Amino acid sequence: MAIIEDFNAYRSKMNDKILGSDNKVMKRLYSLDTLTYQDGALSGKVKEMLGLATSMVLRCDDCVRYHLEKCFEQGVSTNEIFEVFSVANVVGGTIVIPHTRRALEYWEALNNQK
Amino acid sequence: MAIIEDFNAYRSKMNDKILGSDNKVMKRLYSLDTLTYQDGALSGKVKEMLGLATSMVLRCDDCVRYHLEKCFEQGVSTNEIFEVFSVANVVGGTIVIPHTRRALEYWEALNNQK
Amino acid sequence: MAIIEDFNAYRSKMNDKILGSDNKVMKRLYSLDTLTYQDGALSGKVKEMLGLATSMVLRCDDCVRYHLEKCFEQGVSTNEIFEVFSVANVVGGTIVIPHTRRALEYWEALNNQK
Amino acid sequence: MAIIEDFNAYRSKMNDKILGSDNKVMKRLYSLDTLTYQDGALSGKVKEMLGLATSMVLRCDDCVRYHLEKCFEQGVSTNEIFEVFSVANVVGGTIVIPHTRRALEYWEALNNQK
Amino acid sequence: MAIIEDFNAYRSKMNDKILGSDNKVMKRLYSLDTLTYQDGALSGKVKEMLGLATSMVLRCDDCVRYHLEKCFEQGVSTNEIFEVFSVANVVGGTIVIPHTRRALEYWEALNNQK
Amino acid sequence: MAIIEDFNAYRSKMNDKILGSDNKVMKRLYSLDTLTYQDGALSGKVKEMLGLATSMVLRCDDCVRYHLEKCFEQGVSTNEIFEVFSVANVVGGTIVIPHTRRALEYWEALNNQK
Repeated sequence: MAIIEDFNAYRSKMNDKILGSDNKVMKRLYSLDTLTYQDGALSGKVKEMLGLATSMVLRCDDCVRYHLEKCFEQGVSTNEIFEVFSVANVVGGTIVIPHTRRALEYWEALNNQK
Repeated sequence: MAIIEDFNAYRSKMNDKILGSDNKVMKRLYSLDTLTYQDGALSGKVKEMLGLATSMVLRCDDCVRYHLEKCFEQGVSTNEIFEVFSVANVVGGTIVIPHTRRALEYWEALNNQK
Repeated sequence: MAIIEDFNAYRSKMNDKILGSDNKVMKRLYSLDTLTYQDGALSGKVKEMLGLATSMVLRCDDCVRYHLEKCFEQGVSTNEIFEVFSVANVVGGTIVIPHTRRALEYWEALNNQK
Repeated sequence: MAIIEDFNAYRSKMNDKILGSDNKVMKRLYSLDTLTYQDGALSGKVKEMLGLATSMVLRCDDCVRYHLEKCFEQGVSTNEIFEVFSVANVVGGTIVIPHTRRALEYWEALNNQK
Repeated sequence: MAIIEDFNAYRSKMNDKILGSDNKVMKRLYSLDTLTYQDGALSGKVKEMLGLATSMVLRCDDCVRYHLEKCFEQGVSTNEIFEVFSVANVVGGTIVIPHTRRALEYWEALNNQK
Repeated sequence: MAIIEDFNAYRSKMNDKILGSDNKVMKRLYSLDTLTYQDGALSGKVKEMLGLATSMVLRCDDCVRYHLEKCFEQGVSTNEIFEVFSVANVVGGTIVIPHTRRALEYWEALNNQK
């Protein structure tokens, strides 16, 4: 699906440039980010849903897409995704709705890819 | 105007999918949203301006477009819209300016459509 | 009421210090703020309600208190205030609820003062 | 613990006033809030952790306290709570740290009450 | 570079319309904005970096682009820009990363233009 | 000054508890935070002003206090602090004003301590 490939191609290209710089803080933030979602007292699956819900209430579409992919890999079901959406929309209010529309479009693309 | 039609087509298509799901929370949030802006102690017109101003300071372009359409239907004048813009920009600061540029473009499209 | 007097005493004391500094930008921002809520295409009353709703979704308790006082002076009724609350809570979500509790407490103090 | 009792007493008193008003939107928002966290495709426990994480990144101390109580009732462990904290701090940045300090103080109070 | 020209063309066109309106508050906000970044106790260069960092944590891509241009005119180096990015990402968290990707793309365009 | 001592005592006590936990992500975030503000392409002084400005627009009073202390140690003058305040207030809008009042109170305490 073009929507998935375009997102990931741009993301990878620019991440490489950021990590290719000499900035140690940015590099450590990236590795801290990876560490955060690993299995621990909570499973990686639950943590990815936490990442998704927090990204939704902060209304960061690219962060939402990233965590949708991770949730998809972790086997989160569509009913579960909708419940994450519902918590985010109730906590964050109707301003989250436009981001939910785009999130659902991306989720469907993930489920429809071969 | 393409800008208006595209926005509404995407919005309707994705809203139908969200409402077509089994998620009761999302459905009730949508109906609560509708209830919120009905005439009451305050007129629907004032409430739509409240919806517009809050969407601007929270910097949600799609929410802004939606409430601009509702304000247009309620007969809000261009001078009134600019005063809503001005409150939102003073309360929310210069980060609201880029959203105001896009809001004005959409407002002009609404006024220029046949 | 102590809650009102304390808020206003602190606000005045610190505003005087800010305006007593040499910083021209802060001074102009204060005078711009005053200009924003004057009667125009929209009445001062409507603008104060816009100021209140935007302060609520941005969750600034002191801003909320300030605009509640202005709404009170403009003759906004309790039913109208609750409708402003309701727009802010639906747009901004349940995170606005704690601020609504404090807003209602302040609104009651304003109505109970002699 | 005084910190817990004071929070809940104020919360209950003001919620009663809000629900005692005639405002239908606020009432429905409260009941929607209750519905959101019930067991479904996701357990109530996971949903409360989603509620906690989203409250932390939106930096609403009272919302954090409320969801900490619910997490406590759901049997969330201290190690799990710290992992929710860690996702919220990485997604939301160091501005979440002061809220984490207050969250931990409240969590300890919940665990130390008789 | 198309990315720079498109941004500035749209920005100028819509700013002219906003300033061409009768709204005094918007006009004064624009002139206050200009005043804010002039040399004073702090140099214009430092102030533009403050403008950039605050725009990043508030996640306003257009504001980021505007301040990147100003930083470029002020002679901010790429190493310095990355340190502004790093403060913004640590303070604001990983939700700032997607905005950093777009910021770096724009910064490279500014440096590659003839 | 009590305001300074109370803030730092609470901050230290709770930071010790967070760092005393087994959570590796929180520990690394704290050390990343320290790394971020060290002299580099930009001086520690400029970085602390970036930390202050971003904390102000995100309206985190405790973060503001922390960076005010660091700015004080770095020898930032009162005129410079007011210029940081002015950028934050123009970018972030009048909702930053109440935080500026509290910031000025803390800044005065820092300057008046023996």
